Amino acid sequence: MRVYVLPTTFRGTELFSVSGKDAHYLTRVLRMKEGSSFAARDATGAFWDITITAIDKGECRLSCKRAGTEPASVTDSLPSYRGPFPEIHLYQCLCKGKKMEQIIRQTTELGVTRIIPVSSEHCVVDISGKKEERRNKYGTVVKEALQQCGSPVMTTVAEPIDISMVVSEWNNRGTAMVLHQVAVDNQLSLTELLQSHTKAHPRTPIALVVGSEGGFSEKEVDQLVSGGFYPVLLKTNILRAETAAVVSVALAQQLLVSHL
Amino acid sequence: MRVYVLPTTFRGTELFSVSGKDAHYLTRVLRMKEGSSFAARDATGAFWDITITAIDKGECRLSCKRAGTEPASVTDSLPSYRGPFPEIHLYQCLCKGKKMEQIIRQTTELGVTRIIPVSSEHCVVDISGKKEERRNKYGTVVKEALQQCGSPVMTTVAEPIDISMVVSEWNNRGTAMVLHQVAVDNQLSLTELLQSHTKAHPRTPIALVVGSEGGFSEKEVDQLVSGGFYPVLLKTNILRAETAAVVSVALAQQLLVSHL
Repeated sequence: MRVYVLPTTFRGTELFSVSGKDAHYLTRVLRMKEGSSFAARDATGAFWDITITAIDKGECRLSCKRAGTEPASVTDSLPSYRGPFPEIHLYQCLCKGKKMEQIIRQTTELGVTRIIPVSSEHCVVDISGKKEERRNKYGTVVKEALQQCGSPVMTTVAEPIDISMVVSEWNNRGTAMVLHQVAVDNQLSLTELLQSHTKAHPRTPIALVVGSEGGFSEKEVDQLVSGGFYPVLLKTNILRAETAAVVSVALAQQLLVSHL
Repeated sequence: MRVYVLPTTFRGTELFSVSGKDAHYLTRVLRMKEGSSFAARDATGAFWDITITAIDKGECRLSCKRAGTEPASVTDSLPSYRGPFPEIHLYQCLCKGKKMEQIIRQTTELGVTRIIPVSSEHCVVDISGKKEERRNKYGTVVKEALQQCGSPVMTTVAEPIDISMVVSEWNNRGTAMVLHQVAVDNQLSLTELLQSHTKAHPRTPIALVVGSEGGFSEKEVDQLVSGGFYPVLLKTNILRAETAAVVSVALAQQLLVSHL
């Protein structure tokens, strides 16, 4: 099911206007006209039934009615998976521009709960400037992905943090893993870890830490491991960062869903 | 382990020269000098120990010795997963330029055996012209991915075929699936299918058919299903074509490896 995602400036009012890219998406991509009705979600994930009351000079005026747990009108009749979606938090070390966007796009499609960009020693991305620009870019990528795939999970992207803050940010909410290319003694596989996780804590969230193009330094892995994060080595080739992210989220989701 | 992939023009001779992109990769990316030794593989997957005997005007002259099942010298000490790699054949409906390349790159990294580009009703890609150009482009993507990830599987990309030929091309080599967005009665999940596959036919290959941006027509799915392909609906959101490809290969690999 494809749903329109309302701008974050929407505050639950009955009348609302959109312009710019949002209006373009409605009138050009979805080809809506005056009088068209469609399903939408707000930033909290709540459903709304929307009707376009007027289109004027690139602005769309909308009439919005709260829709309960399911929207009354949908723009696309494709059936979709309704869950359960395990709660996955992705701590993603910052990759270069397009790669980071690809990771955000693909893991949002999969239904990851939260993406936390992480600055690490081998990151080549400077996060000191352009905060607003990056925030907007990531927000747009998530919004487009949500609109396209109709995920029931309203993925959020957090502000970037330093890798030394990951353990305290996670705060022991559930089983946490760092995807690492080096095997250690008595290591559990992703399957073993997630099977024991779901037995012990069904429905509690999990965290995945995925490195940037340059991987982790030994010190970083040591810090995470002493903070209770399990080092996991996937039974596959060594993957590039953007492949590792989507693959590890997909595998975790598969293991958690099939055992829930 | 990172290995150099020899050009397809290499015929197993003791003396061989490379120029252009291949020489650039050796001297600039891997920073090899005269006298440097490194591991390489030829198009059949066989290992070679290579020494650079001369670098002259953008040309590298190489001395090549057949290396048995393992190379004597490696350029990178990263440990890597040695297998087993289940034999996965990906019938991928043609997506637009960069997306198709992304799919080829990521599934090569994962260690898929063979990628067969497929022309289907909802494909927007015209495959009638530019055959040579496309072949070269795909070949370059595979080669770069293999060199970067050091996969022990020498992925090949076949010539594009029409979707009506998929059943006969596959020729019942093993369990075959079509990733479809529509649920049907008594449908098996990917997990159930691959569990029964590995019980019944351990180590026989599997086939995955993944749609283009526009998905499949009903007629195409019917043809594949009557040809013995199982329709599989992944327990996740409806994914874009390039995400569906990498995710389905990763999930299949995980299910096959953990049960082998």
